[in-house]
Amino acid sequence: MPVGTAATVKAVAQDVLEGIGAEGLGAQIILANTYHLYLRPGHELIARLGGVHDFMSWTRPMLTDSGGFQVFSLSKLRKITDDGVEFRSHLDGSKHFFSPEHSIDVQIALGADIAMVFDECVEHPASYERTRASMGLTHAWAARSKEHFEKHKQRVPWFERVGAGETQRLFGIVQGGMYADLRRESAERLVEIDFPGYAIGGLAVGEPREVTREMIARTLELLPKDKPRYVMGVGYPDEIEEYAKMGVDMMDCVLPTRAGRHGLVFAREGGAIVRMNIKRKEYAEDQGPIDAACSCMVCQRYSRAYLRHLFTTGEALSATLNSIHNLAFYLDTMSRVRGELATTN
Amino acid sequence: MPVGTAATVKAVAQDVLEGIGAEGLGAQIILANTYHLYLRPGHELIARLGGVHDFMSWTRPMLTDSGGFQVFSLSKLRKITDDGVEFRSHLDGSKHFFSPEHSIDVQIALGADIAMVFDECVEHPASYERTRASMGLTHAWAARSKEHFEKHKQRVPWFERVGAGETQRLFGIVQGGMYADLRRESAERLVEIDFPGYAIGGLAVGEPREVTREMIARTLELLPKDKPRYVMGVGYPDEIEEYAKMGVDMMDCVLPTRAGRHGLVFAREGGAIVRMNIKRKEYAEDQGPIDAACSCMVCQRYSRAYLRHLFTTGEALSATLNSIHNLAFYLDTMSRVRGELATTN
Repeated sequence: MPVGTAATVKAVAQDVLEGIGAEGLGAQIILANTYHLYLRPGHELIARLGGVHDFMSWTRPMLTDSGGFQVFSLSKLRKITDDGVEFRSHLDGSKHFFSPEHSIDVQIALGADIAMVFDECVEHPASYERTRASMGLTHAWAARSKEHFEKHKQRVPWFERVGAGETQRLFGIVQGGMYADLRRESAERLVEIDFPGYAIGGLAVGEPREVTREMIARTLELLPKDKPRYVMGVGYPDEIEEYAKMGVDMMDCVLPTRAGRHGLVFAREGGAIVRMNIKRKEYAEDQGPIDAACSCMVCQRYSRAYLRHLFTTGEALSATLNSIHNLAFYLDTMSRVRGELATTN
Repeated sequence: MPVGTAATVKAVAQDVLEGIGAEGLGAQIILANTYHLYLRPGHELIARLGGVHDFMSWTRPMLTDSGGFQVFSLSKLRKITDDGVEFRSHLDGSKHFFSPEHSIDVQIALGADIAMVFDECVEHPASYERTRASMGLTHAWAARSKEHFEKHKQRVPWFERVGAGETQRLFGIVQGGMYADLRRESAERLVEIDFPGYAIGGLAVGEPREVTREMIARTLELLPKDKPRYVMGVGYPDEIEEYAKMGVDMMDCVLPTRAGRHGLVFAREGGAIVRMNIKRKEYAEDQGPIDAACSCMVCQRYSRAYLRHLFTTGEALSATLNSIHNLAFYLDTMSRVRGELATTN
């Protein structure tokens, strides 16, 4: 899932997103950040305009996170109680309060197809005791999120319009830090509460990759195979390939767009995935595309020399073209993996 | 002609440019700035890569200015002699020298379809004597530009590739400030030197619009009707409409893209052309398009509310979408004017 933080996948227009990647199928689902949209332009405004799909003119599926991760990583002066989190906006210092109930209210107002329970994201590294206590809070909040969601899900802005009683789906989030037994306990507790999909949160926060892999593997086997299993906030192309092959169904990451803005583009060289820094002098007169095997509109049309020029001169088109290529590269990677899995199974 | 300063029409991809405006015909010709490309990435690099068309992947016509206007408006510590202009780069303070011959060499290396003679742009306001002296220099430089161009035009990077002896075309530039008799003298002198097209330079530099109009009118009648007549650096949509109806064939302006980046978008309201500041609070929940009568991809898809959100949150997509709408608005304006002129004549 490409990340569209403020209801825009940075520097890439919606019609482009609809057509990039393998066979021009485009992104099938994108993510938006509840924390950002809550602050600007505000969830109530978006609800009055029919929900985030209408607001940004995106008819395909969308997912909103709970806001929790951003509250813990971006905001200032957080105060956490069992009830929720008081924090100050990273934009203007204004004071806000998110509880599981409020996160759900905001997400119902935004109206993405998939909403997430409000969870606490523990810092890394964290002790066993700290992680265990935090996980307990997350479980209590998951139950409260679900209860509130079930009670109010018909308030979604498009409820009447779509009809047939259709509502959003609320996914649970497994926590438990880097402790396999806590991950097990968390997965079991979440499955007990019962959600239509499960995320694995709190990974890719600085731990070694073997640990990420182990936590994913241990957790996956405890989650129902017939429901979507989603690893949040990963990763590099080789990581998403690896996790998909382990059985992960959904992932989201800012990397293709954020790396693109910083001049980092992905390519395949002899079967291996490489990262190229497009600003390097060696590309100054390079008339080849980023990746000769890539069929994206950027590789079909523009040279490394031109992309380097756009980056070094600070032109806006640089972020756009690099992001389009990287997003296409990610979607192509997933398409290839799906093909391989279909053949294998 | 949309302006693509550094071989990119800011924030708009080439495939979008090819399809915007009336009947999806796109921009038929774009402009690039010699001064900027000379500094970065350098004209010799662009020549080695086949010229600016190949460099930026744009197969339609292009025009480069002479670099004169930017030398006089952007660079530092200029020293003008009869021979040329010594200046320091606005980027890094490095010292450079542009003569008519050097400007032509750079433009031949860039290889746009149309090149411009190197002229001095007089400041505004300027006395009669100052303007007359500057005009004399401009005429001498025009003759030297043409002589150098004729001698070296076969060096254009695509000369062998295109074949049939095809080369660029060099246009002259009429100066003369805000003095009708100097404009007359300049036009006559330029026609005497003989160019395949003529520009009217040194206007829209702060003078009242009636003066611009008068200078254009007085000059146009002295320039051959069977050759392109080009007013440089104008203007607002109502201005380009007015000048086109007076007989001007070509115009270029950064306004559609620069205004777009600043949140200013153009629309028609009851026959009149209005400028909207998209960041205004009144658009916060406005679900209508910028211009209900506009068929551009922005007006077909996005609301004022969304465009306001993109601008106020500083999202890159804001500049892209505003610029696309404004460019389409300009091209549509010109298309309409052409239709009206075809009916009238």
